[in-house]
Amino acid sequence: MSTLKRKRWSRRYGDWFRNVLIDAGIMDYRYPIKGCGVWMPYGFKIRKNVLQILRDLLDSTGHNETLFPLMIPETSLAKESAHVKSFEEECFWVTRGGLTPLKVKYALRPTSETVIAPMLKLWIRSHADLPIKLYQIVSIFRYETKATRPLIRTREVASFKEAHTTHATLEDAEAQVKEAVEVYKRFFDELGVPYTISRRPDWDKFAGAVYTLSFDMICPDGRTLQIGTVHNLGQNFSKAFDITYETEKGTQEHVWQTSYGISGRAIAALLSVHGDDHGVVLPPKIAPIQVVVIPIPYKKKDKQINRACEGVITTLKEADLRVELDPRTDLRPGSKFYYWELRGIPIRIEVGPKDVENNEATLVRRDTLEKQTCKINELVAAVQKLLKKITRDLRQRAWEWIEDRVYRVDSLEEAKQLLSKRAGIVEVLWCNRAECGRQLEEAVGARVLGVPVGTEEKVGGKCVVCGRKADHVVRAAIAY
Amino acid sequence: MSTLKRKRWSRRYGDWFRNVLIDAGIMDYRYPIKGCGVWMPYGFKIRKNVLQILRDLLDSTGHNETLFPLMIPETSLAKESAHVKSFEEECFWVTRGGLTPLKVKYALRPTSETVIAPMLKLWIRSHADLPIKLYQIVSIFRYETKATRPLIRTREVASFKEAHTTHATLEDAEAQVKEAVEVYKRFFDELGVPYTISRRPDWDKFAGAVYTLSFDMICPDGRTLQIGTVHNLGQNFSKAFDITYETEKGTQEHVWQTSYGISGRAIAALLSVHGDDHGVVLPPKIAPIQVVVIPIPYKKKDKQINRACEGVITTLKEADLRVELDPRTDLRPGSKFYYWELRGIPIRIEVGPKDVENNEATLVRRDTLEKQTCKINELVAAVQKLLKKITRDLRQRAWEWIEDRVYRVDSLEEAKQLLSKRAGIVEVLWCNRAECGRQLEEAVGARVLGVPVGTEEKVGGKCVVCGRKADHVVRAAIAY
Repeated sequence: MSTLKRKRWSRRYGDWFRNVLIDAGIMDYRYPIKGCGVWMPYGFKIRKNVLQILRDLLDSTGHNETLFPLMIPETSLAKESAHVKSFEEECFWVTRGGLTPLKVKYALRPTSETVIAPMLKLWIRSHADLPIKLYQIVSIFRYETKATRPLIRTREVASFKEAHTTHATLEDAEAQVKEAVEVYKRFFDELGVPYTISRRPDWDKFAGAVYTLSFDMICPDGRTLQIGTVHNLGQNFSKAFDITYETEKGTQEHVWQTSYGISGRAIAALLSVHGDDHGVVLPPKIAPIQVVVIPIPYKKKDKQINRACEGVITTLKEADLRVELDPRTDLRPGSKFYYWELRGIPIRIEVGPKDVENNEATLVRRDTLEKQTCKINELVAAVQKLLKKITRDLRQRAWEWIEDRVYRVDSLEEAKQLLSKRAGIVEVLWCNRAECGRQLEEAVGARVLGVPVGTEEKVGGKCVVCGRKADHVVRAAIAY
Repeated sequence: MSTLKRKRWSRRYGDWFRNVLIDAGIMDYRYPIKGCGVWMPYGFKIRKNVLQILRDLLDSTGHNETLFPLMIPETSLAKESAHVKSFEEECFWVTRGGLTPLKVKYALRPTSETVIAPMLKLWIRSHADLPIKLYQIVSIFRYETKATRPLIRTREVASFKEAHTTHATLEDAEAQVKEAVEVYKRFFDELGVPYTISRRPDWDKFAGAVYTLSFDMICPDGRTLQIGTVHNLGQNFSKAFDITYETEKGTQEHVWQTSYGISGRAIAALLSVHGDDHGVVLPPKIAPIQVVVIPIPYKKKDKQINRACEGVITTLKEADLRVELDPRTDLRPGSKFYYWELRGIPIRIEVGPKDVENNEATLVRRDTLEKQTCKINELVAAVQKLLKKITRDLRQRAWEWIEDRVYRVDSLEEAKQLLSKRAGIVEVLWCNRAECGRQLEEAVGARVLGVPVGTEEKVGGKCVVCGRKADHVVRAAIAY
């Protein structure tokens, strides 16, 4: 069933996504500035639960949360040459304070490397001050000229988690990149969001980085979505801002840095990969309400039914579950089912006359809409077991989804055909030369995502473009 | 002792405050844009605990957290005439996207009434949609031309909690104002921050409000600090944005609104009112670390001492206390005392050779620096009791501080003298006419805070300015 629905739904993914955000009370992008959205109460709770997972992972690995200013003087942004070149045309610029033109104009942060650098310069004296591992969760701003898309391509990215770390050695920075990748894997695993990890080609790395690793997901329409990036910044920013420390030997050395970010796209991915024609489907850990209890009214039995519902609520609350009763009398059960399915509540419990008679309740899982009945005195165990099963099944289905859509092919022609059908990600052999990478992009009409990371596969063969010896697999896809 | 210290310290309050923020690792304002500061890791934890209290109070009174965009089109800001007149010269203006001039320029929100209004217009249809009680915690921006002061007068106000409520009737909005005042009272009571509540004079109310109530504290230097405001907005914004709802009778009516805000000044107040020459003093509920354990090394006994310290840590953690060991071997105990006193940890526990011998620990409370010893097996109870006492004592001393600094006087001359000495707040009788209020401000060289709120005192007498019949007390002070 599920597959059928998803197939149907995937053809109109863009509309589905835009509508479900408003209809489920998650976000509303009808604000008078294009690409700027409102996190509504229900959406804000989803966002909070998602960010809490990220915070816990970062806090438990020695990162400290902070908050840096929004505005960047043009003089700071300009210090790292590759960085400013990429970002100056993408920034919103503050040029006036009140009615007065500013002498130095300020960019709204598109990312915060150049915000943090001048402070690190003040804070770091010696090797004993290192490492420094900071993060913040803020809005960043990009003057997008392409069509905007809710949560995916926005002008205000209203949930950007950016981490910035500073180290004494290149090796420490390399180790930090690995830790960041592990943290992000665990984060996406908690959301049940599947990913591929690729090392971006040099022509598509973060402006100012030595290299960039990227997490990409495949959307229901077959396009990929970059959902997280990890950058090794080397000494590029520390040299530009002259951030040095005294080594144990007493010499001065520039620090080594990394940065890594995850945006609201993580939430877009979560909603897109699990959702269906009925609306969003939330993993239990993310759901603001995990169980909704709906009385099925029946004349002469309403008192018993309502009492049974209240009993269910009390029992589940005592087990620390997030549970809510829908007591509305102006809505029929069917309308309530629709309402809560749209919002993705993992389990619906129905209590009707027959349930009361048998001392039972009916459980309906949101992801498959399957029903089961359960004795009231076994309810807590049954709900906890079902929530675990939903978590596991969502993750597994999502991984199957992505694994079915990664294709290893031998020719440009096959790659082109698959990509023209928005089939997902194609992998081909590559000689690792930028020239061939660019030609590949042109030939297949797609973007090179980069070389797989974390797979130790040995490959040998010929570059699909030039026929030279190829030691690498490279991925390409139609990307958002 | 405490009073003596505080007297000495109050003379150099401005310097003390600026230094303690950096030295204790709370905030750093040495960012290359004036009036924009960085919340450092320790400060961020304090901020988080303070905001959590506010969130809990708002959530438990039916407010929903949300997140609205930062930028406001000039066309939106201009809709309410009093509002735009006050704010347009105070806003930072975004006039360029990349290299392109924007057709409509955007203000960085100085407050969000005009951000939320167009969305309310989309969301509200009927009386059943009301009330709507929203809040958000965001940065707001003011192009301050006066000298900036950390957390008190800044260009980026990086911890602004603004609530916005919408109602069907004037009565509901009035009731909401009362609820907001109660919420804020409980909030400041939790921080141990004392306040006076005044109804601001008409010439000093929020631009766009019908009236404004304000919470003011007295700083150690005798100047007052506005730490929270509550506005009844009437139908001013709903008429400007044409936000209507269908009544039960089927007619259309404009909604009634309130808004109320608390900024980082609440944290400035908290730090200022409790601090002393040794640094900040944190109420236990706010302190990121409530108890720090410091071993007092003594040759031949170090093993036992360290083991005892670890025992203390384990015991206190099991009691859900936020406790940390300072195991550094390169610092003497005295330096550690200094380090943690600066950061305001409520209780220090010292464990030395004598303590180990007697199966005891030494407790030192941060606020009074008083010592006591305690048997190890009674430690949890002793610590919990002492934390409660510290909470109570901090609040009580702070209230005594403010109550000693509010003066009821009979003449302009007395008022002027007290204010020239920065004695605090003066109260005089007033005829309630703006003309006399303005003359009062001029005569005493201070600002009128307004008429006391919540005191039911009946007054009768003559206006201190014009000699006419006076039914009101009015407060004046040198204000930040």
